[in-house]
Amino acid sequence: GDGAAVTAAQRRQDSLTKPQGSLGRLEEIVAWLARWQGRANPKLDRVAVIVFAGSHGVTAQGVSAFPAEVTVQMVANFQAGGAAINQLARAAGASLDVIALEVERPTADFTQAPAMSEAEFLAAVSTGYNAVKKGTDLICFGEMGIGNTTTASAIAAALFGEAGEHWVGRGTGVDDAGLSRKAAAVDAGLDRHHADLADPLKIAAALGGRELAAIFGATLAARHHGIPVLLDGFVVAAAVAPLARLNPSGLAHVLAAHVSAETPHRRLLDMLGLAPLLDLGMRLGEGSGACLAVNLVRSALECHAGMASFAEAGVSEK
Amino acid sequence: GDGAAVTAAQRRQDSLTKPQGSLGRLEEIVAWLARWQGRANPKLDRVAVIVFAGSHGVTAQGVSAFPAEVTVQMVANFQAGGAAINQLARAAGASLDVIALEVERPTADFTQAPAMSEAEFLAAVSTGYNAVKKGTDLICFGEMGIGNTTTASAIAAALFGEAGEHWVGRGTGVDDAGLSRKAAAVDAGLDRHHADLADPLKIAAALGGRELAAIFGATLAARHHGIPVLLDGFVVAAAVAPLARLNPSGLAHVLAAHVSAETPHRRLLDMLGLAPLLDLGMRLGEGSGACLAVNLVRSALECHAGMASFAEAGVSEK
Repeated sequence: GDGAAVTAAQRRQDSLTKPQGSLGRLEEIVAWLARWQGRANPKLDRVAVIVFAGSHGVTAQGVSAFPAEVTVQMVANFQAGGAAINQLARAAGASLDVIALEVERPTADFTQAPAMSEAEFLAAVSTGYNAVKKGTDLICFGEMGIGNTTTASAIAAALFGEAGEHWVGRGTGVDDAGLSRKAAAVDAGLDRHHADLADPLKIAAALGGRELAAIFGATLAARHHGIPVLLDGFVVAAAVAPLARLNPSGLAHVLAAHVSAETPHRRLLDMLGLAPLLDLGMRLGEGSGACLAVNLVRSALECHAGMASFAEAGVSEK
Repeated sequence: GDGAAVTAAQRRQDSLTKPQGSLGRLEEIVAWLARWQGRANPKLDRVAVIVFAGSHGVTAQGVSAFPAEVTVQMVANFQAGGAAINQLARAAGASLDVIALEVERPTADFTQAPAMSEAEFLAAVSTGYNAVKKGTDLICFGEMGIGNTTTASAIAAALFGEAGEHWVGRGTGVDDAGLSRKAAAVDAGLDRHHADLADPLKIAAALGGRELAAIFGATLAARHHGIPVLLDGFVVAAAVAPLARLNPSGLAHVLAAHVSAETPHRRLLDMLGLAPLLDLGMRLGEGSGACLAVNLVRSALECHAGMASFAEAGVSEK
């Protein structure tokens, strides 16, 4: 992070025709862009959304309200332009890439075996890492994968403790019995992989999914390239949570775009020390919440770049 | 409101490729647009922001951190394009009009006399009413007026009870002594005008300001023309609060865009039964919070208009 760029940006903010601090979190957003882009006057010429898709063996445990085939069908919908994320990316002035990670070959059911081998996990991380283009000004990651809120709950439980029931939510809309099956699947996964739970990377491989591994890799790439990241919902937060366990500042370049209606999301953000920008009861995934926050970031930057100072406008100060 | 348009819009929402309800408040936003525009497929071709400015005699009580001359200076800044609202309106794709209401002639100090005579009040209401153009698809009202958070606090206290200290906040940034002066001014106003406190219109005239009266009139005009209104901060909420007291559904066409850092704003929204879309610690006024929410509304509508249905996309349902 570039502290000098932040200082210069904040000095400019304080000179603009408004009571100091009165733009609230819009001022924080500008400082965050300045820090990670390394520019006192950040830019948003190239905003990217990448949606990663993967298939999950744990769907065998009856953890989703939708059939597993929906993952492949929704990838086709993304490619045809018919999903929510297509509309939201266009409204945000962002490019949209969709990367399907072997969606015809689900991970192993983590209640029975590691979801991925080390080699499979690293291949997915690598795909994510390489998907991020240097020179991007802001990036959002999304996911699609029937069954992946159970995967996310398992990762959160493994990283932060507590039983499955503490970390599961209704995902695409399971009933009470489905919710119990999700909690039981998480508990079975924790039990089966208990020897691996001290290592965040082993947790991500044993309990995670290919699209989550890709988001992990892509978030690492963003850090290396100086690209601020807007986090989407519970699944994305769980995908990047191992970075925070590997390094206390591993997620410093990340801002939580929203808190979703998936119950454990707020708890996970609290554990990660992240305060969401939006709270609109969304629970769709795909990167939808992150994408929705892009125009807030654009508005923050427009104020920073375009406002007159007290001196320029001839306005009296306090 | 057009209930048939809402029903048709909700039927379409439920057919789109997402778990039902998973776009959260974005779905509520579309229903709101449909209801007040009277169209199952709402549009946002003409979005308008109108900022009303007025000057306040109660500044004589030392209630603001900024000198009263700033009101006139900021109107010039709006006209020159240097204020936050200029940047935010551009980022929202909205037109911006600025209407100064006799800013060189402050209202009377409401601790000493009615802020406005009935004739002055009605003239300001009328200016606001006539500023709203039929055919506008969505409208935001903003305000500028040094001293007007004290005015807003006085109206809220008069409408909903409790002493001044319950309803004042730090506005542009007063210290503890300034906060006490604000509370004392409100209490003095309530005391002086106690005979008028049963009538919402007399409250708005005796304790309000010209820009608040104009916003009252403009919000009424929006209702008559079928234009949904995004509410800005505490001052705007206080300006329209008398409509809710005159008619329980008087604010049904209004959505609260944000809750600001001005402490009494959340309490006032609660009294009005309004749930804010954004909570970003802003406290600038000018219509800034309302304008920031316009792109959320645009994104909601893009999803509604552009997404494929389950049938169109060949995606399996539950």
